[in-house]
Amino acid sequence: MERITARYFIETPYAVEKAAQVLAGEQSSGTFVAVPGETEELKERFAARVEAITPVATVTTPAIPGATSETGTYHQAYVEVSWSIENFGYNLPTMVSTLQGNLYEITQFTGLKLMDLEVPRSFADHFRGPQFGIEGCRRLTDVQNRPLIGTIIKPSIGMTPAQTADLVKTLAEAGIDFIKDDELLSASANSPFEARVDTIMRVINDHADRTGKKVMYAFNLSDEIDSMLRRYEKIVASGGTCAMISLNSVGLAGVKKICDQGQLAIHGHRNGWGMLNRHPLLGIEFPAYQKLWRLAGVDQIHVNGIQNKFWESDDSVVRSIQAGLQPFLGGYSILPVVSSGQWGGQAPETYRRTQTTDLLYMAGGGIMAHPDGPAGGVAALRDAWEAAVEGLSVEEAAKRSPVFAKSVAKFGKKK
Amino acid sequence: MERITARYFIETPYAVEKAAQVLAGEQSSGTFVAVPGETEELKERFAARVEAITPVATVTTPAIPGATSETGTYHQAYVEVSWSIENFGYNLPTMVSTLQGNLYEITQFTGLKLMDLEVPRSFADHFRGPQFGIEGCRRLTDVQNRPLIGTIIKPSIGMTPAQTADLVKTLAEAGIDFIKDDELLSASANSPFEARVDTIMRVINDHADRTGKKVMYAFNLSDEIDSMLRRYEKIVASGGTCAMISLNSVGLAGVKKICDQGQLAIHGHRNGWGMLNRHPLLGIEFPAYQKLWRLAGVDQIHVNGIQNKFWESDDSVVRSIQAGLQPFLGGYSILPVVSSGQWGGQAPETYRRTQTTDLLYMAGGGIMAHPDGPAGGVAALRDAWEAAVEGLSVEEAAKRSPVFAKSVAKFGKKK
Repeated sequence: MERITARYFIETPYAVEKAAQVLAGEQSSGTFVAVPGETEELKERFAARVEAITPVATVTTPAIPGATSETGTYHQAYVEVSWSIENFGYNLPTMVSTLQGNLYEITQFTGLKLMDLEVPRSFADHFRGPQFGIEGCRRLTDVQNRPLIGTIIKPSIGMTPAQTADLVKTLAEAGIDFIKDDELLSASANSPFEARVDTIMRVINDHADRTGKKVMYAFNLSDEIDSMLRRYEKIVASGGTCAMISLNSVGLAGVKKICDQGQLAIHGHRNGWGMLNRHPLLGIEFPAYQKLWRLAGVDQIHVNGIQNKFWESDDSVVRSIQAGLQPFLGGYSILPVVSSGQWGGQAPETYRRTQTTDLLYMAGGGIMAHPDGPAGGVAALRDAWEAAVEGLSVEEAAKRSPVFAKSVAKFGKKK
Repeated sequence: MERITARYFIETPYAVEKAAQVLAGEQSSGTFVAVPGETEELKERFAARVEAITPVATVTTPAIPGATSETGTYHQAYVEVSWSIENFGYNLPTMVSTLQGNLYEITQFTGLKLMDLEVPRSFADHFRGPQFGIEGCRRLTDVQNRPLIGTIIKPSIGMTPAQTADLVKTLAEAGIDFIKDDELLSASANSPFEARVDTIMRVINDHADRTGKKVMYAFNLSDEIDSMLRRYEKIVASGGTCAMISLNSVGLAGVKKICDQGQLAIHGHRNGWGMLNRHPLLGIEFPAYQKLWRLAGVDQIHVNGIQNKFWESDDSVVRSIQAGLQPFLGGYSILPVVSSGQWGGQAPETYRRTQTTDLLYMAGGGIMAHPDGPAGGVAALRDAWEAAVEGLSVEEAAKRSPVFAKSVAKFGKKK
């Protein structure tokens, strides 16, 4: 019978083998007391199995509160646990409850993080996954052989639809490929969702009629199910190509329902991610996280960026990009969205470390505050990426591209 | 204009005032660079405001990775921040993105936890909240003046519908008020959801016809939206009174969609909660968490139990029960579900510290493994609670109730 495997990084004051068995027990038979109905046959069929244990280190300070060690030592290890597909079938929320449920509460652990998960091939028969992915997003924006260049409407919140549409017009004329709402804006008092779609899509459609290039705008439709479905239809009817959804705030069932509509590329915003990931021994790592959303059908997912303004290290960002680009179930292509403090100066390092242009590369101030205006900002980003792919450094790229040199002069100083 | 207020526990290497301003900026204007459209008028209307700062302590080790302190000190404080209702209106997912979004990624914090939130009265006009709550669950189970006594089907997974129904019959005859599926079981290979509902509801309806008492069974319908709606209808059509949903795995939009149906009491299981709460300076505390689910319409929510088998302290459990019982928007009643390692011995301490019987008190082994069988287990729990309300100790309760004395002899030893 096919099995689902999860890989955890754990810490425990007990023998790792014993703690791993507690985890497997809690997440399948679910009780420490033998109960009448629990036969050996039933255990064999439904019990979770500890597949592998790899010791990592022994420390003297527990990572998070839990049981106290009598010897003063806490053991860290990678642990692999598997479940039969018979336990929950093709049900993402129940898979999450099994792999990420009560196990975080087990006192025998002083640290527990889900690192990765593997699902059997049969999942591909039940989850169609991203309907657009990298290739579809390239097709919709008509961009090949370089990253899609995108930006976020700022200020995040407060502009009217007309003001936003003016900005979109400027950005479209500057040659941008992609624009998104901020995650803080879904519908504000002075920017109702429908009015924003109408006003912005008029600009985008006009621009497409004139130039043949349709800018992809990710409207943030995050809300209750019925409202999201209405908003989705509004985007489709208006000729839009993308909807943005806050993955953690809406949740797995809601996100899948929206992805299932299949007519728009889905931009997955992971705000709230820091809560799930920032501690090294609590929560979930991106390789596991992004697989859940690919199964749900998300086409684009945030990964932060090199030298970002947030806490995340470059190593972690690189691992996330690599995880997103790795085929899953033979495909399930998802476009990594690079953002946070980006202005093009990070392009050489991003390319050097990931060797890919299959990215949506987002810059805010790096585009809007460019000395030559947004058109200069977009041109500078394109030049930076062209140079990056050729293996040039920031300095070499600046020598070749005067417009990128202006970016370096303005944004490079801040480092 | 009405405002939403969030209270955070933060830690920062910088001046607390400065870090709080970064949080407010990031979660409203959203950029550190001044952008053209950001006028003073617009800031006044939409900017988040730091309302209060209460210093707590200064420490020398950061709680989670972030910016390094040049002075070697990290400042902990409570910070209150508010947003105008104009920013996101009555949209729970976008409220969550605002109160719990990118702020967890801000490098200026080495710790950040959402402690509580306050919403204006007008939320009551937009969210009808729990349709049953404490009073409705009492009415459905015909239980007054004592906690509802409940149990969880064990083993968690592996039994057939017929085996489960046999157990339900035994428990119903034992006088139980409430039974639930385990969160690991939604539909397994040998227990399809519909067959389980059919088989179990036949037993429950027969028992109700004979005795006038309908046991509340929480069927775990957690899955995708369409499947959950079909399962919901199945429960309703079969005469069931309750559905269980894994709150974190399904997510806010999906849970609200199910609650909105309004015909069944919704049992909210918080598995995965440890990931969100176990670190003292990362994530969310229960007073904030439970308000989100009351707004969504959840009728029952897990709070763990005194002397539980998990990591959570009794103090934290007591605070959670108190949070659940506190009126919210003048009502929005939700029934706290006490569980994990309960057998009745914790009843005196639970009552002493919370002074309430408005609880769903769940015991597993404490009922099934009672020396007199499940009927003895249920009777023992009722006796324990009656004694608890009279202020008796476990020893005094055992003296008065022979059946509870047997629980003490069997389960009390383990402490």
